[in-house]
Amino acid sequence: MNLEVLNGLLKPKSIAVVGASATPGKIGYTVVKNLLDSGYEGPIYPINPKRDEILGLKAYPSVLDVPGPIDAAVIVIPARYVVQVAEECGKKGVKGLIVIASGFSEVGRHDLEDALVSTARRYGMRVLGPNIVGVLSNSDKCNASFAPILPLPGKASLVSQSGALLIAMDTATYTRRVGFDKLISIGNMSDVNFADMVEWLSQDENTACISLYIEGLKDGRRFIEVSRKTAKPIIALKSGVSAHGAAAAASHTGSLAGSGKVYEAAFQQAGVVHASDLNNLFDRTLALSLQPPMKGENLLIITNGGGVGVLATDAAERYGIPLRFAPEDVQAELKKHMPEFGSAKNPADLTGMAGREWYEESVEHTFGHPWVDALTVLYCETAMTDPMEIAKAIKAAVDRSGVTDKPITVSFVGGERSERAMQWLVEHGIPAYGAPDVAVNAIAALREYALTHEAGQGEFHPYADVDEAAARAIVAKVRAEGREMTEIEAKGIFKAYGLPVAQTILATTEEEAVKLAAQIGYPVVMKIVSPDILHKSDAGGVKVNVKNADEVRAAYNEILANARAYKPEADIHGVAIQEMAPRATEVILGSINDPTFGPTVMFGLGGIFVEVLKDVTFRVAPVNEAMAAQMLTDIKGAPILAGVRGEKPRDRAALAEVLSRYSQMITDLGDEIAESDANPVIVYEEGQGVKVVDARIILKTK
Amino acid sequence: MNLEVLNGLLKPKSIAVVGASATPGKIGYTVVKNLLDSGYEGPIYPINPKRDEILGLKAYPSVLDVPGPIDAAVIVIPARYVVQVAEECGKKGVKGLIVIASGFSEVGRHDLEDALVSTARRYGMRVLGPNIVGVLSNSDKCNASFAPILPLPGKASLVSQSGALLIAMDTATYTRRVGFDKLISIGNMSDVNFADMVEWLSQDENTACISLYIEGLKDGRRFIEVSRKTAKPIIALKSGVSAHGAAAAASHTGSLAGSGKVYEAAFQQAGVVHASDLNNLFDRTLALSLQPPMKGENLLIITNGGGVGVLATDAAERYGIPLRFAPEDVQAELKKHMPEFGSAKNPADLTGMAGREWYEESVEHTFGHPWVDALTVLYCETAMTDPMEIAKAIKAAVDRSGVTDKPITVSFVGGERSERAMQWLVEHGIPAYGAPDVAVNAIAALREYALTHEAGQGEFHPYADVDEAAARAIVAKVRAEGREMTEIEAKGIFKAYGLPVAQTILATTEEEAVKLAAQIGYPVVMKIVSPDILHKSDAGGVKVNVKNADEVRAAYNEILANARAYKPEADIHGVAIQEMAPRATEVILGSINDPTFGPTVMFGLGGIFVEVLKDVTFRVAPVNEAMAAQMLTDIKGAPILAGVRGEKPRDRAALAEVLSRYSQMITDLGDEIAESDANPVIVYEEGQGVKVVDARIILKTK
Repeated sequence: MNLEVLNGLLKPKSIAVVGASATPGKIGYTVVKNLLDSGYEGPIYPINPKRDEILGLKAYPSVLDVPGPIDAAVIVIPARYVVQVAEECGKKGVKGLIVIASGFSEVGRHDLEDALVSTARRYGMRVLGPNIVGVLSNSDKCNASFAPILPLPGKASLVSQSGALLIAMDTATYTRRVGFDKLISIGNMSDVNFADMVEWLSQDENTACISLYIEGLKDGRRFIEVSRKTAKPIIALKSGVSAHGAAAAASHTGSLAGSGKVYEAAFQQAGVVHASDLNNLFDRTLALSLQPPMKGENLLIITNGGGVGVLATDAAERYGIPLRFAPEDVQAELKKHMPEFGSAKNPADLTGMAGREWYEESVEHTFGHPWVDALTVLYCETAMTDPMEIAKAIKAAVDRSGVTDKPITVSFVGGERSERAMQWLVEHGIPAYGAPDVAVNAIAALREYALTHEAGQGEFHPYADVDEAAARAIVAKVRAEGREMTEIEAKGIFKAYGLPVAQTILATTEEEAVKLAAQIGYPVVMKIVSPDILHKSDAGGVKVNVKNADEVRAAYNEILANARAYKPEADIHGVAIQEMAPRATEVILGSINDPTFGPTVMFGLGGIFVEVLKDVTFRVAPVNEAMAAQMLTDIKGAPILAGVRGEKPRDRAALAEVLSRYSQMITDLGDEIAESDANPVIVYEEGQGVKVVDARIILKTK
Repeated sequence: MNLEVLNGLLKPKSIAVVGASATPGKIGYTVVKNLLDSGYEGPIYPINPKRDEILGLKAYPSVLDVPGPIDAAVIVIPARYVVQVAEECGKKGVKGLIVIASGFSEVGRHDLEDALVSTARRYGMRVLGPNIVGVLSNSDKCNASFAPILPLPGKASLVSQSGALLIAMDTATYTRRVGFDKLISIGNMSDVNFADMVEWLSQDENTACISLYIEGLKDGRRFIEVSRKTAKPIIALKSGVSAHGAAAAASHTGSLAGSGKVYEAAFQQAGVVHASDLNNLFDRTLALSLQPPMKGENLLIITNGGGVGVLATDAAERYGIPLRFAPEDVQAELKKHMPEFGSAKNPADLTGMAGREWYEESVEHTFGHPWVDALTVLYCETAMTDPMEIAKAIKAAVDRSGVTDKPITVSFVGGERSERAMQWLVEHGIPAYGAPDVAVNAIAALREYALTHEAGQGEFHPYADVDEAAARAIVAKVRAEGREMTEIEAKGIFKAYGLPVAQTILATTEEEAVKLAAQIGYPVVMKIVSPDILHKSDAGGVKVNVKNADEVRAAYNEILANARAYKPEADIHGVAIQEMAPRATEVILGSINDPTFGPTVMFGLGGIFVEVLKDVTFRVAPVNEAMAAQMLTDIKGAPILAGVRGEKPRDRAALAEVLSRYSQMITDLGDEIAESDANPVIVYEEGQGVKVVDARIILKTK
């Protein structure tokens, strides 16, 4: 994408306000006034056919009447006039439309929104919105919005899908001490979406951290791609993860996916750090915008109070960075800066006697130690110490340590004096929080950021030995016959992707059944094959452990009779004869074609793990074997694959390859496959491989 | 307990400060100054043999020299002099000792602490501390501490085991707008402990909510008892719940208990609401001190922004009060106060156009509706509305609704103006928070409070048909022989408590084995019986599915041979012949004798549920059948007992009775049993009962 074009929206050199008004209280007035108040340095052109002048600026009847060039047009007129104005903007050579106006797709008027976008496209313009608050940028001295004020200056930029929240957060940046360079309202995302914003902000020199409030993505795959490439931390608060939506999902995998699980996986794959709620978004954004990632596992906590130390210890475990004792030399150093009854372990408790010297010395000497990967400094306000002195001591120690590649966070618990000291710390680049667990959570965000970029998230190299054409031929046949796909056909497609399916052959006569069973080897499993009977067991269509020719004959006839009784009109292809795989650990693979992210793979252990515990994990497909291996450790039942109660480990390497190949299959055939599953898949001991016992593919409706 | 005595500590009419000093910076100076600054109205007696006057008050060489009576003596002298001073205080008739002095058990000087307590007991005095900050009370205008200032006045009282945290929270009450009447530092709890404080505060007219910061309880059972009786909400932040401690626990049940799980159970049984972290303690305390419990399940959310509405919806699900759509009549009412594109469902979105009228009308008309059990009102600051006006509208609506038995919480997201409006709300009794999920979490606290008092937590009525004497006889025999208890003996004790153990009889000869097997009925299980062989399977000491006399003979001899080979010196009692229980759902009961709470029962599903997923639940024993039934629903695997995949429900009623009887057994024999388990216990279909297949009891070391 040509990022230059977006400059017209996000760093405009000149701005027209279409619908500018001289009446205070009207949005068309507020936007012009905000541009003036924010000190915007480019020309501002109020557009209003009834006025010669607005707020001291010359007004024009139309953008076409403006003498100079226009980068951005902020549009604040009723929806029904917007397309006409877009046409005029196109003719004028405007680069971007900031469409504050509402009344489009959000109220069902998709027609107006489509017309707006197609008009803009015709002229090569980009559209932000409609239904937005606007764009605010400190570095551009530009408040092109109806939000009251430029936010507290800082190094993060926020993109919000909720306008009301953006306005509220705007003023909240001051009370919460979290600074932003830009606030961008993204609204209906008719054209410019989150992926565009991430791409543009990742090259914006005034943005160090990209902060997102997301209700729903459009083009999820491009979002993942673009996000992964970004060298800046991205943090997202995704709302709407409750069960409401999930209930509506039709399929099993679909209902397990809910609305939250696939986003969670996608964020992980995109390297996006997760925010759990609004405070957490603010708190983590502060840390990500001021501090480097935490590259190792060792967090050292320094405190003057045992209580907050224990709370921080609990938090460290809760947030996935459990504390370890510091090595002897670190402890020896710490002991120099505490009374005898202090503790040099971790947390290092300098005790209530700690003043600025002890804080300064202990921070300086531990921050530089190679064992320490991150530092959290806690301080309980006491009557004997001055919080500002402690703050300055911490900052001085960090500076003198010369360390710039490890993160530090701080928590001061106390009153006004502590608040002022924390403000000073934040202004000097050190994130500070009013509670110890929040300071630890902020470090955890920096650890998560490092981890999502370390994990085997690399490229996917497609398997070359697959036969996509054979798979598509099976799909084409099923489509031509306008029916459901049978198990035998699904297994054919699985096989074309190198998946180890249990040998399964169709018998259409009793004699053929006996012949095939002997060929496959006893015992065998026999199943009805009919595109009209998907729940084979319910139809009495499955017989297992069939041991000899007599039993095959009896089973063949019984299965057919049962099937005919169950569904007289069913089209019956015959009976599948299948090798009976020895029992071992059962797992399930599944796939959905997610509306946001496309083909998505699910993995879980069989039986109660999926059905009772919903213990499953997702990834947007395709996944390479390293990512697949990570999926195997994601689930709570992971120890079962590793081997419990003296059992040998299962063949996880083979299973990871199966998952990876399966993910390629659903990706290659993403235009055809709506859902699929392999259930059960039997996983044998290490080195003994994996067997797909049953397979099912549901095609997309076309 | 005589609560009057504690008045001497917590509402003293006169105070001596032993170790009072005229030197600013010394604690003995700070305490006297704080008493004066807080406006304390009773006489203050500085005790210092070297001074005639301190801070304008007449000083005395000793408490014995003070002319009037002394309720409380605040002691701030070095530890080694404290016992002597306590003796003098006793002679003087002092009621309570507030021992700020440190240097006692916290540094290993248990001797000094024991001497202090025994001296106090001799004179009927109570001791708070040692190693504390002191006591602060707004209603008594008394800051008998070295914390800087009385806290922001309010209706909660805080008891803190960490002094540093108490001092820090003291000033933080102002910045966080959470008011307290009393702050009490409890320190080493040599005498007065949390149970005493809860008991005293529950009758304190100035305390509406009891807020606790707990590192570890002493006398956990009395804490539960006293807390359950309290008619006021109690909230506790328990620190030190990370795995550090748990790793040291020796037994299986013990290691599953960790340090957090038993506290969690105990709090639930005590009706204590849980705080997850320091901010959460403040936030929930505010709600519990200002609002009534939430007695039903329906939370209605009113908002002016979709974004915060969705965040609140997610939070409601996360915190266990998922939203439902409001009924038609509520929706009809709401629709009157919003534009056409608003939403009357839940959350009710009044849209950004909402001003004070819509807020006022929608709150007034829904709060009184019988469907609504609680209300959370959200507001995103906008340029067009005044947060203070919205705040006043909400308060006016609540007042006019006349509702006082349902809770309401509020969240304003915005800047300074919103902060001021929220402060006003809090001052007028409505808890207000800066983020929507926090307002929902506060409502969840009020729901948890209601639930812990609704659930079947009633009295435990002991089963009368138990034979404690028989059980104790078995214990006595094992103790007399100085050995471990065998399975047969453990089952004897279980049986004495009416537990349905699988019939198990000891055979000491081959012939007896054959006779007993025939009597019990084939097939049988045979197991080695030896106090020296606890892991019977490892010793080759178990044979299952033994089908006839020949097999019994063979098994008998093989088991004995294996056992002798495994441990030649083992004392072998013989071979147990046991009925072979048909397979069904396996569960595990276990017990520990918790150092804080005493006999504690554990329940979980068998196999991987316990071993891999650690899916277990605890209760302090005894538990009645209603509480036991609740345990069955606590675990994640609960659906298995309810019946999954078309299976019939298990006999949960019988299992609940077994759990309840088992809990009585470990309670009655709490002086003897260190740990026990019943593993597996087989649970059959509803009406078919339960069978304890294996049982084990480990006696306390005496």
